[in-house]
Amino acid sequence: MMEARGSSAEVLLQRPWLPVSISGCQLLTKSWFGETAYHVLLTDMHCVWEERMDAAAIQQRSQELNRRLRAPVKAFFSHLCEVVQPCLTGSDGRVDGEAQISLTRQEDGDIRMKLKSELAGLPFYWEFHCTPAPVTVVCAQLVRPLLAMSHLLQRQVEQLGGLLGRKDAEIQDFRENGATLSRERLQTDVFEEQTYREDFMSKALPQLCSEHQDALGFNDDLQHLYAAIVAHGNTRKRKRSEEDRPPAEEPDLTSSLGGSISSDTGEVREQSPDRQVNTAGAKMADRPTVKQSRPVTSEPAERPSSKLKKKKVGLFR
Amino acid sequence: MMEARGSSAEVLLQRPWLPVSISGCQLLTKSWFGETAYHVLLTDMHCVWEERMDAAAIQQRSQELNRRLRAPVKAFFSHLCEVVQPCLTGSDGRVDGEAQISLTRQEDGDIRMKLKSELAGLPFYWEFHCTPAPVTVVCAQLVRPLLAMSHLLQRQVEQLGGLLGRKDAEIQDFRENGATLSRERLQTDVFEEQTYREDFMSKALPQLCSEHQDALGFNDDLQHLYAAIVAHGNTRKRKRSEEDRPPAEEPDLTSSLGGSISSDTGEVREQSPDRQVNTAGAKMADRPTVKQSRPVTSEPAERPSSKLKKKKVGLFR
Repeated sequence: MMEARGSSAEVLLQRPWLPVSISGCQLLTKSWFGETAYHVLLTDMHCVWEERMDAAAIQQRSQELNRRLRAPVKAFFSHLCEVVQPCLTGSDGRVDGEAQISLTRQEDGDIRMKLKSELAGLPFYWEFHCTPAPVTVVCAQLVRPLLAMSHLLQRQVEQLGGLLGRKDAEIQDFRENGATLSRERLQTDVFEEQTYREDFMSKALPQLCSEHQDALGFNDDLQHLYAAIVAHGNTRKRKRSEEDRPPAEEPDLTSSLGGSISSDTGEVREQSPDRQVNTAGAKMADRPTVKQSRPVTSEPAERPSSKLKKKKVGLFR
Repeated sequence: MMEARGSSAEVLLQRPWLPVSISGCQLLTKSWFGETAYHVLLTDMHCVWEERMDAAAIQQRSQELNRRLRAPVKAFFSHLCEVVQPCLTGSDGRVDGEAQISLTRQEDGDIRMKLKSELAGLPFYWEFHCTPAPVTVVCAQLVRPLLAMSHLLQRQVEQLGGLLGRKDAEIQDFRENGATLSRERLQTDVFEEQTYREDFMSKALPQLCSEHQDALGFNDDLQHLYAAIVAHGNTRKRKRSEEDRPPAEEPDLTSSLGGSISSDTGEVREQSPDRQVNTAGAKMADRPTVKQSRPVTSEPAERPSSKLKKKKVGLFR
């Protein structure tokens, strides 16, 4: 188990925005599940919602939703993670035959995700109450990375345009020296940046319109770019805070366009990226095998729920 | 005077994010000034603030700040616009020798912009009280356009990579037929997308870090792209709402990733893009000439403040 210090928002920043579909709603999500805490971000690109819960809050809600449950948080939180994480990392909202997740939008604009699963042979209920995220979170998790992405991509477009100009100069030199193509179909038009851009926009904008969901999530290339930028931003931040932390106590508005990432959550003691990886692997198989650091048993395709039934007897009274 | 119906947020969406510097703070702004109402958006990329004010609210605040002012809103609002708009469209916060604007960050995270100018020979005070904008506004004005920009730029990068491949095939055909370059320096390396991208990222990320403000505002190319996308989004929205308005009364979460722009403000009756244009023009000149639809007088470079003194006598009691 890796142990790291830092806010859950910083951990989330390093995660990709994953497309999920719950109750027919197309969303992008980021989630972090600690030992007995979680932080979930959801967006439909019209709003961004979040919920942060610590052990005490989880305990209280679990009691309200499961009257007969008297177990400490640790005892049922691993079950919650196993059931919920696949839903928040790209599955269709059904982990196995027993667990169900649904999403409703409240009248006040909040999002509620309801989970029903089975724990120790009895129904286990959970609800995520997601409220609109603070603007600072939206800026850190979406606005700043997206603007940096646009800048980098714009610069790539410029560079590639320059390379095309050099290719054209090379081709022109060949031609001026009397060279001809053996296959005429290999001939290309001279690249004209302005013409290209106008032509591109006239075709791409209507396409963007017709593609809807695909166009407005992150595709693989954009995911990689997002990851590179937030990873780099984090390196910068550590560097800056170590080397030249400003003595001022006031918020640093003047240099704020420079894009240092402000911390906007409390500290969270532990994180378990291992669990995230396990669950992501588990979602690929119909009957997930749960990796654990214990001797391999003779039950190769053991279901998590049946294992929990054996291990967690006595959670309910 | 053009008259259009629609929310001020929709009008603002079509405006660019302009870099301004007030009290040493680097910000991006969008602003809309109507007849007796305004809507201002500010961001330092760590938070987004806004203030929307109607005639009644403006009247009340002007009374609080200017005890002796007894004029109706219309009588002093044009002065406010003339003084403030240059500050919010890229000047350095000084319109002429008389007006001064300053910005402070409140302890609660709000932004306050204080203005001091002169009207009818007496000091005139104004304050903008900007609070964190709703997440829906941030999504509409920044997140969705930026994600669409990233998609379009990513597609351009792919297309240009494809074009480079075709140039290389043409060059290879010349070479295979024995052609040589007259100037060796014109020779280019074969374009390898993966190698290029890795090389680009290793150089561009540290650059992005060192450029700060320039890198995280919108440069000209990104401004154009932003404008094209929001203009296109608006066309789509009108088309959709005319042609196939869904009968459902519930918020349309399922198709929300498709990016239709939700209206999130009340209706504003009138808008005056003319005034915005006038002011943008005025900021270029040291002594602005105010365009008006009245006979040209014999005072060619008349200052707005002196004109107001003549026209608006009796605003104060």
